[in-house]
Amino acid sequence: MKADKVVGIIGGMGPAATVDFMARVMDRTPAENDQQHLRMLVEHNPRIPSRQKAMRGEGESPGPTLAAMARRLEIAGANLLVMPCNLAHAWQADIEAASSVPFISIIDASVESALSRSSNDSAIGLMTTPGCFTAGLYQQALADGGRPVITQTADELAALMSLVERIKGGDLSSELVTAVREEANRLVTRGAKVLIAACTELPLVLDESMFNVAFISSTDELAKKTVALAMGCE
Amino acid sequence: MKADKVVGIIGGMGPAATVDFMARVMDRTPAENDQQHLRMLVEHNPRIPSRQKAMRGEGESPGPTLAAMARRLEIAGANLLVMPCNLAHAWQADIEAASSVPFISIIDASVESALSRSSNDSAIGLMTTPGCFTAGLYQQALADGGRPVITQTADELAALMSLVERIKGGDLSSELVTAVREEANRLVTRGAKVLIAACTELPLVLDESMFNVAFISSTDELAKKTVALAMGCE
Repeated sequence: MKADKVVGIIGGMGPAATVDFMARVMDRTPAENDQQHLRMLVEHNPRIPSRQKAMRGEGESPGPTLAAMARRLEIAGANLLVMPCNLAHAWQADIEAASSVPFISIIDASVESALSRSSNDSAIGLMTTPGCFTAGLYQQALADGGRPVITQTADELAALMSLVERIKGGDLSSELVTAVREEANRLVTRGAKVLIAACTELPLVLDESMFNVAFISSTDELAKKTVALAMGCE
Repeated sequence: MKADKVVGIIGGMGPAATVDFMARVMDRTPAENDQQHLRMLVEHNPRIPSRQKAMRGEGESPGPTLAAMARRLEIAGANLLVMPCNLAHAWQADIEAASSVPFISIIDASVESALSRSSNDSAIGLMTTPGCFTAGLYQQALADGGRPVITQTADELAALMSLVERIKGGDLSSELVTAVREEANRLVTRGAKVLIAACTELPLVLDESMFNVAFISSTDELAKKTVALAMGCE
């Protein structure tokens, strides 16, 4: 067999996003039968303390739980760690302190793709949740890339959060999809040439075919990079 | 939080079937937010020795690998074990010998549902793969239930196996779906009043709406029973 790596997934944030990530890893893996697919160890824990609340200073930090999950995945045999949740990357330092295997950042994967898919002066529209906005991880990475960023207003962040909560509750209705697209299009109207769906619930309802600008699915970018690294192609 | 159980999944047989199973568990879980969803530990290992080959006496037994996975999931904290692959249940005894947590059989879940959804003299059509047919697990459980069974011929088993291999290779085309439905309808033509999709690749392309007889998705039956047992409802 190939000497490819075992992918450890710090999962459950949200539950559907983890399953979507696993499906995208399989879609991106060149495999004709079961045995050619990648091994994954998944700790699917939807009970991790709320990242949004912690970012508002209202709740328990998820850092210790995330660190413990990373450590257990390493002990169980993971050679790479990923976490299909953007906001949870605010606690990446806790994970990296707890584990010695490489951690693939969804922020880095998404920003690298956004930068490579657009010209140097193209503004990038950032669709995210209030917690991830406050964490500022994307704003920092895009600033480091020297790229103008169009962000949501406070009202837009709150509106998108309500829609994300509906997606987490299982609402994938056409009315919901239309509302999420409208939020995305506000950024396009203000000049975004690239949209980053910087919340793993968003690619459950949005895809590139819905927009006339480049669309970056953070889930899919993490899946692509995971497959490349796990198979030793990067 | 609820004192519900952690579900351990012996997964990767095939990869898409495991992801389908996880999605069905979530669909069946009454949850409005992340924290109400079930915790799952998934060892997604598509490299388990081929169950079909082992059943033909041509390859290594998957039993020791399955037993080791069960043991690791128990150590990692699983309180229930499931395996979304029908044929692999031929090695259920290895799993139960290696682990002390309850194992929920996909065969039992599917047969219980098939028996409850039809009258006592209704023949049950069994759609399966050559290995699972040889193992005879379904035939035994249905005989124990006193129910007539309509099985595939050797040619039909071989034809369905080719289609299952295409599904495992990612083919979900309408032509593939039509071909699988045709195989199912052969059993209906011969008198089946209930169809059991006794291979977890089949519910990736078939659903109840396609048939005018009862349709039992083994994946979905296992998901329903898993949710009920994990939430303490059974």
